[in-house]
Amino acid sequence: MTLIDTLAVRNDRKILLVVIDGLGGLPRAGKTEMEAAWTPNLDHLAAESSLGVLVPVAPGVTPGSGPAHLALFGYDPLEHQVGRGVLEALGLGLSPGPQDLCARANFCTLDSSGNVVSRRASDGGVRLMTDECEELCTKLAQSIEMIDDVKVTIRPGKEHRFVVVFSGPSLAPELSESDPGHEGVRVESVKPLADRAAKAAQTANEFIRLCNAVLAGRKRANSVLLRGWAFPPRFATLRDRYKLSAVCIAAYPMYRGLARLVGMDVVECVGDWDDEVEQVRANRDRYDFFFVHFKELDKAGEDGDFDRKVELLERFDDDILPQLLGLRMDVLCITGDHSTPAVMAGHSWHSVPVLLHSRYVRPQHQVEHFAERECIRGGMGRLAAKDLMALLLAHSLKLAKFGA
Amino acid sequence: MTLIDTLAVRNDRKILLVVIDGLGGLPRAGKTEMEAAWTPNLDHLAAESSLGVLVPVAPGVTPGSGPAHLALFGYDPLEHQVGRGVLEALGLGLSPGPQDLCARANFCTLDSSGNVVSRRASDGGVRLMTDECEELCTKLAQSIEMIDDVKVTIRPGKEHRFVVVFSGPSLAPELSESDPGHEGVRVESVKPLADRAAKAAQTANEFIRLCNAVLAGRKRANSVLLRGWAFPPRFATLRDRYKLSAVCIAAYPMYRGLARLVGMDVVECVGDWDDEVEQVRANRDRYDFFFVHFKELDKAGEDGDFDRKVELLERFDDDILPQLLGLRMDVLCITGDHSTPAVMAGHSWHSVPVLLHSRYVRPQHQVEHFAERECIRGGMGRLAAKDLMALLLAHSLKLAKFGA
Repeated sequence: MTLIDTLAVRNDRKILLVVIDGLGGLPRAGKTEMEAAWTPNLDHLAAESSLGVLVPVAPGVTPGSGPAHLALFGYDPLEHQVGRGVLEALGLGLSPGPQDLCARANFCTLDSSGNVVSRRASDGGVRLMTDECEELCTKLAQSIEMIDDVKVTIRPGKEHRFVVVFSGPSLAPELSESDPGHEGVRVESVKPLADRAAKAAQTANEFIRLCNAVLAGRKRANSVLLRGWAFPPRFATLRDRYKLSAVCIAAYPMYRGLARLVGMDVVECVGDWDDEVEQVRANRDRYDFFFVHFKELDKAGEDGDFDRKVELLERFDDDILPQLLGLRMDVLCITGDHSTPAVMAGHSWHSVPVLLHSRYVRPQHQVEHFAERECIRGGMGRLAAKDLMALLLAHSLKLAKFGA
Repeated sequence: MTLIDTLAVRNDRKILLVVIDGLGGLPRAGKTEMEAAWTPNLDHLAAESSLGVLVPVAPGVTPGSGPAHLALFGYDPLEHQVGRGVLEALGLGLSPGPQDLCARANFCTLDSSGNVVSRRASDGGVRLMTDECEELCTKLAQSIEMIDDVKVTIRPGKEHRFVVVFSGPSLAPELSESDPGHEGVRVESVKPLADRAAKAAQTANEFIRLCNAVLAGRKRANSVLLRGWAFPPRFATLRDRYKLSAVCIAAYPMYRGLARLVGMDVVECVGDWDDEVEQVRANRDRYDFFFVHFKELDKAGEDGDFDRKVELLERFDDDILPQLLGLRMDVLCITGDHSTPAVMAGHSWHSVPVLLHSRYVRPQHQVEHFAERECIRGGMGRLAAKDLMALLLAHSLKLAKFGA
């Protein structure tokens, strides 16, 4: 129990946390994506809000989506780590239970004596096509449904990647990886690293043997490598910790999966931004905490597409924000999980702009625009992302006084 | 020992810590109480001082007076918690020793079969008058002076509340509460929760029996409920930690009590602000750390009286500050223990403005007024309140260099 957990009280006030994935950026020709965007609605809102910047994990640390989101939900990302196999499974739309053993898998290419020629089944630098990965996964899934009493679930990812989930009694994640980590050597067998993992190791090795049989005769992608063994973690839920009735509205599976890990209900929503807003509206009376995730800015940032990021911000401002404001939540927070500067074409360690609107915020100095440098000077200051939830609860009067 | 404790050295330089209780606020019609106040002396001082904001306990956490003051004295408020019974006793002017068992008490009303009709001895929603509480406490005190070798001290509070302190050998605070927490059920006996608390439980139950005898025949307030059992904590003193010779000048008992817990001398001072200033002046040569507490702004804030808070700030500026400046202390710090925005009519989680004046402060950006948004941009930045003491010591050259 954290201090905040002990102080949380239930009430009917509503919190809307809007995560614009990859929101913050870096300048191109003197202006960041946010500074270059024409966002009159955000700017107007910013002038009536408290601004600040969030440090996702620690100074200098670039987070993946998992730790970045857990921090926003109030979970210390260093104490709440999620195994890679589980994150991949969540990202591919699976919902593994607490005793389901997850692993990341690659198709790979072995030579006739069993040495790894390519860990990613590349051929002269050309990667496996995602279509072919999907076909191969379908074949594997048709041939390998059960291994003794263990159910096998296979889900294709991008290029050479897929995940496998083993569901059955007496499994455990203390397993070595079969991926040798470099090429020109033999694939390793999976070894139990704890007594209780003996059956899991047997199952994994039998899975590899069965895959090899299905893939036999192929020149490339004729075997598989397994790594990142993990059970889904058991986290205290937002209801346990904060007495919140929370819902996730996100078009991408990984964010829905992360939300499930902290006990949010999940609204299936595979459409565009307007669909997500419509789902918030439709569920307004059923919950008191709404996590809404908008993915596209991060993709534009990862593609290095500065102009697309600007355009998406302007669309958010013009089309989405007025609808969200119309929902009249008691607390509205707009932030990102991390920065994705287009000029870096990837996630970064930079702090993330945050805007918090409620009737209980302090005024700022004159704010003309919602962007990084205004936020750096904002009244919320520089805050660890994991502390944001406490402010959301405070501004919705969901925290009791500490001490007399 | 904290790092600061190990670095502290004694010298003759003097520190004046002025706590304006509930200093920070929120805007009404665009301006906070501090922004609305005409405070030319504070503004002038602010331009020559270092400004910042203090986070009393943690982001989003609204503190009571106990943790808020302990933080200002350099005590981590999460590691230095004071039991509710003790805080009540301090607030009512008692000075319990380290083995004195303190409890919060209510007058309550029982029906003829011993079930709780009202936990607060209310009658159709009308609370017990404080006058009546005082009369009943006097009666109890006259009848119950000792229970075996345990001295009983009773002190009335507001409405139905009082405190009781048991002083004698072999007591312990590991006791259940007699307050059942809701109405329509029987009062519980006090049970020992550890072997060493057997005598304390006996004493408590005998106290309840004796109270019932004194109150017998009354229609309302015919019994008592006990809760919040605690010994006063034993904290290292300011002298032990910082080599400070410290004095508290405060008109309200709880603040004197908190100061005693950290080893300050206490000047009895029951008058108004001018009396408090006069006591600082009279004791100027005897101490090197002065904690002066001004209560009234917090009360105005709790009453939701914005204009009164403004008026009190203006009075502080016009009448009190020039006198304090005339004392020519080496370090003058003006801050609050927490914010009490009039628009919220209560304590809040918002950061607290702080002004630190000494010959060693860095200049700020142009400062025109001492108020929240200037402080947010100030050179001290955003600081945990528990770290303020290190800055007070540093600016009075009372901290040795760390490392060579």
